[in-house]
Amino acid sequence: MLIHSASQMLTLAGGPQRGAALGTLGLVEDGAVLLHGGRIAAVGRSAELRAAFPGEEMLDAGGRVLMPGFVDAHAHPIWAGDRAAEFEQRLQGKSYLEILEAGGGILSTVRATRAAQLEQLIQQTRARLQRMFAHGSTSMEAKSGYGLDLETELRMLEALLHLDDEGPWDLALTFLGAHAIPAEFKGRADEYTRELSQTWLPELRSWWAEKAAGRPLPFVDVFCETGAFSLAQSRQILEAAKALGFPLKIHSDEFDNLGGTGMAVELGAVSADHLVSTSAAEIAALAASDTVAVALPATPFALSEAHYTPARQLLQAGGLLAVGGDLNPGTAWCESLQFSLALACRYLKLTPAEAIAATTINAAAAIQRQDQVGSIEVGKQADLLLLDVADYRQLGYRFGTNLVHTVIKKGALHVPAGYPD
Amino acid sequence: MLIHSASQMLTLAGGPQRGAALGTLGLVEDGAVLLHGGRIAAVGRSAELRAAFPGEEMLDAGGRVLMPGFVDAHAHPIWAGDRAAEFEQRLQGKSYLEILEAGGGILSTVRATRAAQLEQLIQQTRARLQRMFAHGSTSMEAKSGYGLDLETELRMLEALLHLDDEGPWDLALTFLGAHAIPAEFKGRADEYTRELSQTWLPELRSWWAEKAAGRPLPFVDVFCETGAFSLAQSRQILEAAKALGFPLKIHSDEFDNLGGTGMAVELGAVSADHLVSTSAAEIAALAASDTVAVALPATPFALSEAHYTPARQLLQAGGLLAVGGDLNPGTAWCESLQFSLALACRYLKLTPAEAIAATTINAAAAIQRQDQVGSIEVGKQADLLLLDVADYRQLGYRFGTNLVHTVIKKGALHVPAGYPD
Repeated sequence: MLIHSASQMLTLAGGPQRGAALGTLGLVEDGAVLLHGGRIAAVGRSAELRAAFPGEEMLDAGGRVLMPGFVDAHAHPIWAGDRAAEFEQRLQGKSYLEILEAGGGILSTVRATRAAQLEQLIQQTRARLQRMFAHGSTSMEAKSGYGLDLETELRMLEALLHLDDEGPWDLALTFLGAHAIPAEFKGRADEYTRELSQTWLPELRSWWAEKAAGRPLPFVDVFCETGAFSLAQSRQILEAAKALGFPLKIHSDEFDNLGGTGMAVELGAVSADHLVSTSAAEIAALAASDTVAVALPATPFALSEAHYTPARQLLQAGGLLAVGGDLNPGTAWCESLQFSLALACRYLKLTPAEAIAATTINAAAAIQRQDQVGSIEVGKQADLLLLDVADYRQLGYRFGTNLVHTVIKKGALHVPAGYPD
Repeated sequence: MLIHSASQMLTLAGGPQRGAALGTLGLVEDGAVLLHGGRIAAVGRSAELRAAFPGEEMLDAGGRVLMPGFVDAHAHPIWAGDRAAEFEQRLQGKSYLEILEAGGGILSTVRATRAAQLEQLIQQTRARLQRMFAHGSTSMEAKSGYGLDLETELRMLEALLHLDDEGPWDLALTFLGAHAIPAEFKGRADEYTRELSQTWLPELRSWWAEKAAGRPLPFVDVFCETGAFSLAQSRQILEAAKALGFPLKIHSDEFDNLGGTGMAVELGAVSADHLVSTSAAEIAALAASDTVAVALPATPFALSEAHYTPARQLLQAGGLLAVGGDLNPGTAWCESLQFSLALACRYLKLTPAEAIAATTINAAAAIQRQDQVGSIEVGKQADLLLLDVADYRQLGYRFGTNLVHTVIKKGALHVPAGYPD
């Protein structure tokens, strides 16, 4: 199939974009792309490609913007239950601590998730992935972390493996057993940390070899934060994971700075995520490394916080910045990465071009998929979007609605948004 | 048609909701509604209505939430051109003044709108109204104000009358010739004010009698703000409008407090809108009046401003609060009133129930349609939504996506959002 007559084709060619290079769109006017066998076979201008491949099935982009599918580098799409009642209670003036003491907060999601069967988890998560996909995310990370016992964590991963096979999306799986201290380990965080590091991670390694043979290992992630895992506990988990060959991620500096970001750089983590209270020295260390900084602006937005990731400082220092969605039931139930892109423009002060690169090629790097997706280059997977606009800058400028007209995944067309033309 | 088996039916019955009464949802579990001739004929529980009207065509709500259609009390949906390039320039560090001096800002939209033919205006505006409707707004205000000459302002109103006739939505029209000082009156704001008050308003009155006979008169609105219309100029316009019988609206206190809100109360305006820098005394005066306070949280959000309407103070004082969307090309291109509702929860500290009342029955009062729409009561227009959720609190809790499953307008079904079930 030859898709032609895109007003603007954004190729994002050339690999992940560091520092001031962020926002290099590789814009081709009147662009066209040839797809063969779910992959990109040629990229160029409409006239060239139509002349070179006259026998191809043609798809007229109709003056729309053609760009790579979004990659959501940070998502918690699998859980059971919801926290709508808790959201209301907070607005009625209850404190987070009161809610937590009444059994609310993350542990209520853990109870609901533990009680859910595999098929329920698959069904509820599928609906969220469909919504993410309809908003243009063709690949997304998917974290476990609402089980907090090995059985439920593995059931979550099993559901995610099933959903990855089912598609049309591609999932990059992450084990987040270190998301919170489960109720049965209350006051015994060190013990939970030891159990997770010494028993669960090796068991996960064996389970994966059996259930997911041939796939890359999942990421191992830890929530390094006051009330969750201390720096020492986070180190213990990440070092154990690294020794077993797992690639690493970290949630650091969302609220308090415990030093997690520097440790992530030291351990060669693939990404460090949130990064709100990160110090200037840590920003510099991060920028000098290959660890991708993943900003998640939907979280401070949803919590009405005033502080966001210091993205411009990171870029000035030459860092690798991605923007993720952070879909989760507690602080940010939002499946639209376009909305995080709009937040990134307003609250991280990225231009639309920078925010697009941060949600495509750089986000792909944050889940180690930069060789497969995130740009329009020959040989890559044909994961593309047609936007219902003629100028890419409408992304970011407009907000709160879905500007995706057609999602193309591995060469197959999906028209998820039923807006009238 | 009998719509039954709604998990929750929110009737919002009993008229506009003042002060602490805001958020009185009139929730009926397992609710049902009977529709006849585009109107609501009966309201009750599913078992009752199914027994009482066994021969009716049945629509199973499938456990979804059933509620009145949203009413968007403040919208500028008609314009030509866009300001995406300007949005990018601001992010690249250009000041608003530099952009204005280079011919950008509102006056660039005025140039594009003046150059647009009636049919172009209709076509571009229709796409925006369709998107508003797909997100659940079944009635919306629609302001002129990007013409700033009588001919273009009337062409905008003519396009809006055409789109109102076309439907399926209902539009409440507003004349906003006093949106800005046009370039040809630069430095002569008093002269523009006089021209508008003494010549244009009487001509509008005659034009309306000819073009829109039988319809209620449009609102007359003024942007009372530094750089737009002073308090004295705003008064001149609103008093002239009032003398001609036009109902009044005002944009006041969006940035600077010029005293517009108190004047609006004094003149009996139907609504005063924006209200960010409003003083405590003005909040008290507003709350003691019948003027509806319309908060527009999408604007400070989109401009990354820290200050929002002091909604809770207004409610504590017993005021009438509505929340509008403020769709416009300069500061808030967002067609989704659901997104403003989510902002209202986070940044005005409304509960989901309060925010729902502020975007339905109270919003209807802000456009003088509270007798026709905004609630599920016998005799009212059958403007309803089925949400793709079983608990109304998911509105507000979730953000950035469209939770509407089906829009019902005057009894007719529309399924605008093509999300997979």
